[in-house]
Amino acid sequence: MTLSYLRDLVIANRILANEGVVDAFGHISIRSPDNPARYFISRSRSPELVTADDLIEFTLDGEAIDLQGRTPYSERMIHGAVYETRSEVNAVIHNHAYEVIPFGVTGVPLKPIMHTCGPIGSHIPTWDIREKFGEGDHLVVTMDQGRDLARCLGDRSVALMKRHGCVVAGKDIREAVMTAVYLQVNAKLLLQSLQLGKPDYLTPLEAERCTARQTSPVSLDRAWEYWCMRAGADKI
Amino acid sequence: MTLSYLRDLVIANRILANEGVVDAFGHISIRSPDNPARYFISRSRSPELVTADDLIEFTLDGEAIDLQGRTPYSERMIHGAVYETRSEVNAVIHNHAYEVIPFGVTGVPLKPIMHTCGPIGSHIPTWDIREKFGEGDHLVVTMDQGRDLARCLGDRSVALMKRHGCVVAGKDIREAVMTAVYLQVNAKLLLQSLQLGKPDYLTPLEAERCTARQTSPVSLDRAWEYWCMRAGADKI
Amino acid sequence: MTLSYLRDLVIANRILANEGVVDAFGHISIRSPDNPARYFISRSRSPELVTADDLIEFTLDGEAIDLQGRTPYSERMIHGAVYETRSEVNAVIHNHAYEVIPFGVTGVPLKPIMHTCGPIGSHIPTWDIREKFGEGDHLVVTMDQGRDLARCLGDRSVALMKRHGCVVAGKDIREAVMTAVYLQVNAKLLLQSLQLGKPDYLTPLEAERCTARQTSPVSLDRAWEYWCMRAGADKI
Amino acid sequence: MTLSYLRDLVIANRILANEGVVDAFGHISIRSPDNPARYFISRSRSPELVTADDLIEFTLDGEAIDLQGRTPYSERMIHGAVYETRSEVNAVIHNHAYEVIPFGVTGVPLKPIMHTCGPIGSHIPTWDIREKFGEGDHLVVTMDQGRDLARCLGDRSVALMKRHGCVVAGKDIREAVMTAVYLQVNAKLLLQSLQLGKPDYLTPLEAERCTARQTSPVSLDRAWEYWCMRAGADKI
Repeated sequence: MTLSYLRDLVIANRILANEGVVDAFGHISIRSPDNPARYFISRSRSPELVTADDLIEFTLDGEAIDLQGRTPYSERMIHGAVYETRSEVNAVIHNHAYEVIPFGVTGVPLKPIMHTCGPIGSHIPTWDIREKFGEGDHLVVTMDQGRDLARCLGDRSVALMKRHGCVVAGKDIREAVMTAVYLQVNAKLLLQSLQLGKPDYLTPLEAERCTARQTSPVSLDRAWEYWCMRAGADKI
Repeated sequence: MTLSYLRDLVIANRILANEGVVDAFGHISIRSPDNPARYFISRSRSPELVTADDLIEFTLDGEAIDLQGRTPYSERMIHGAVYETRSEVNAVIHNHAYEVIPFGVTGVPLKPIMHTCGPIGSHIPTWDIREKFGEGDHLVVTMDQGRDLARCLGDRSVALMKRHGCVVAGKDIREAVMTAVYLQVNAKLLLQSLQLGKPDYLTPLEAERCTARQTSPVSLDRAWEYWCMRAGADKI
Repeated sequence: MTLSYLRDLVIANRILANEGVVDAFGHISIRSPDNPARYFISRSRSPELVTADDLIEFTLDGEAIDLQGRTPYSERMIHGAVYETRSEVNAVIHNHAYEVIPFGVTGVPLKPIMHTCGPIGSHIPTWDIREKFGEGDHLVVTMDQGRDLARCLGDRSVALMKRHGCVVAGKDIREAVMTAVYLQVNAKLLLQSLQLGKPDYLTPLEAERCTARQTSPVSLDRAWEYWCMRAGADKI
Repeated sequence: MTLSYLRDLVIANRILANEGVVDAFGHISIRSPDNPARYFISRSRSPELVTADDLIEFTLDGEAIDLQGRTPYSERMIHGAVYETRSEVNAVIHNHAYEVIPFGVTGVPLKPIMHTCGPIGSHIPTWDIREKFGEGDHLVVTMDQGRDLARCLGDRSVALMKRHGCVVAGKDIREAVMTAVYLQVNAKLLLQSLQLGKPDYLTPLEAERCTARQTSPVSLDRAWEYWCMRAGADKI
């Protein structure tokens, strides 16, 4: 029988696919509840197809505990590098949500304009792999690259990755999914708002208070139940 | 057996979810047909999942008649505050429809540009909780806050809530759903129109006459049958 | 057993709903193959729900041959007025396709920018009921109003109706559906193109030649088979 | 039993329909693995409905080997003309993906802004049939027209066709599908980015390196499995 936290990881994969946060690419991991120096993530597979059998345990520097011939995600280093410096983070998502791309490539700040989007934080930094690692394929495949990205992320919940996507960190899997879903919502609505005029954003204090509310158990429970139903989690 | 007006409330929840007016958050209530000083609304749950067992009766100031251990919506005060001052209103919707957000945060007036959108009214005010209650989490959790919002709404059918969403009031549940659905449509189309040029809106007189037509029984019946079919109401 | 042209009318209703040309409102009619002075159209019902039992025969001035207690569409006069002046037209669609609204309300010309959209024609006029009939509910409910709209349409396939929608005329039902579907596509793509720069439209001669190709039997057959499959026509 | 490469061609048709790359129109072909001077493509049918029985083998100049009374696509010449000059190309897609149209008609360069979109290439030329062949119906129905388009395409993977769509060439069927899907994604995101500001594109070197990564077996396998699942390929 699948452990409940691994089942939640499978469900989170399906939710991210179903809510359009990921397409064929992108991934989510959780820190091992039994060993903070390890994390679980799927083998190289699209989130919508991930099952419990695809999950692999890794050390923080990306070494598989028992690969069983499966191909790992080449960008798993993103996850380990974040866990390494953020002891309070227990779930990490890397995605290419279409809505965030325009902000990364133009440098227009992505700031929260709606209370449910508070968890994305008042200041989202943008990381450009080109700056330190030159013109390459944009993938984060070494711990060195992952650590550079983690430094840019700092103590925040979101960092954009220019011409690539973003990384989202949460204290647990539900919070990370909440942040990833509403990052996408905020990006879409901010793009539209900027076409109308000058948006009146959440202040940093408001963003903080909206985050507290939006990541409270009652809000997370409500949203999780909803996302699970939509993603067909009862059949997983 | 579920009373028919409670079944309609369940169906309205599903319709609002299916038509994209609400996501995990947002809610709809009806005034009790038996006691105008009370209203029915779901426990804290996403509208797409609401069943008859989730419905709770409240006094207008938000006290549950029989909570049975269920968690109420923290923002139910919006509903009571509107019923309190609007005796002709029998259904209230609070939602965060994505399309309306850009108007609230930029201050661009949201006015009807299409006959089916007449019910949203020619003047939609915008309420900013920050003005009177300061920088908080934007939720309307006290009767004081609810009444301030209801004052802004006045005798209208819609008020925007800045960085949050909107409130919609209808004389019955079908009219409230009609208004909420076409508020979203109008917001989307007005955003597009403003990218093309200067829209020629419905005049206030036209909006009034379009409202009369759009909320006539023949129009409401046609739309309700359509929304019910789409939301799978026959299986509720 | 349903006559094949009436079955096609039911299918066309479902297609228009499924392709997003109509929502709860809008309608399609065909001229009677047996009597050019009559047409068939559904009773007042959303196109997605229309069945053969909903179809009613009308004289061109909107009198039902056998109403059987059913409620007719209040705007059926649009259809009769077009058939009256256009002997070559055998199918008429009235819809509120969202994509066309921004063009009507801003006066920006809606012209074809893509070969499949040729059938919409190089010049689409816009009719404003307000001009002759004053500030009302925008519905076309008299033959007088219908004829005024038909005059604006002239010998074209499409006319926009300001703050309301459009009317589409075709020599047969498949051509009318083709035109309505690609009117929506062209409107969406032209709105986007105008955000990028100055579009290089189809010339009038190209629009004419694209129309000939797009409304040839081989194109209509291919598209009709596709739309039928998507709308589940095999279950009708 | 269907040969596996023909089954893949059927699946690719369904994927392109399911991912919104094609609607009723557009087509995909593969070069015959047994005879480089021939290619396979469906009879005139919408990609979403194509089955193995619809596939026809053609010589590069568009002559059917065994038509069996089926109607061929009038634009099959696009495919043969590309195969003729590009010996390394084994799959060709012609589509009217809505997202690419605004770039063709305005002349705004469509360049990659995201690593997964590298395969579209750093320079996408635009072909205008009007220039050499005058004002017609925009269809490519002669080898002369096909060859003119192929010259414009040159050694690239994508060329836009003004007021019409695009052509995509790949070294195999999965690569061609990958390029067509992400061409659409890039067009959508670039349109949005240009509304925000000045995008910082992939450099030519980055596009090349992203292409190598994105068209590597591990990436193509992951995406193909995902698209197959979404398109219901297991039922084909």
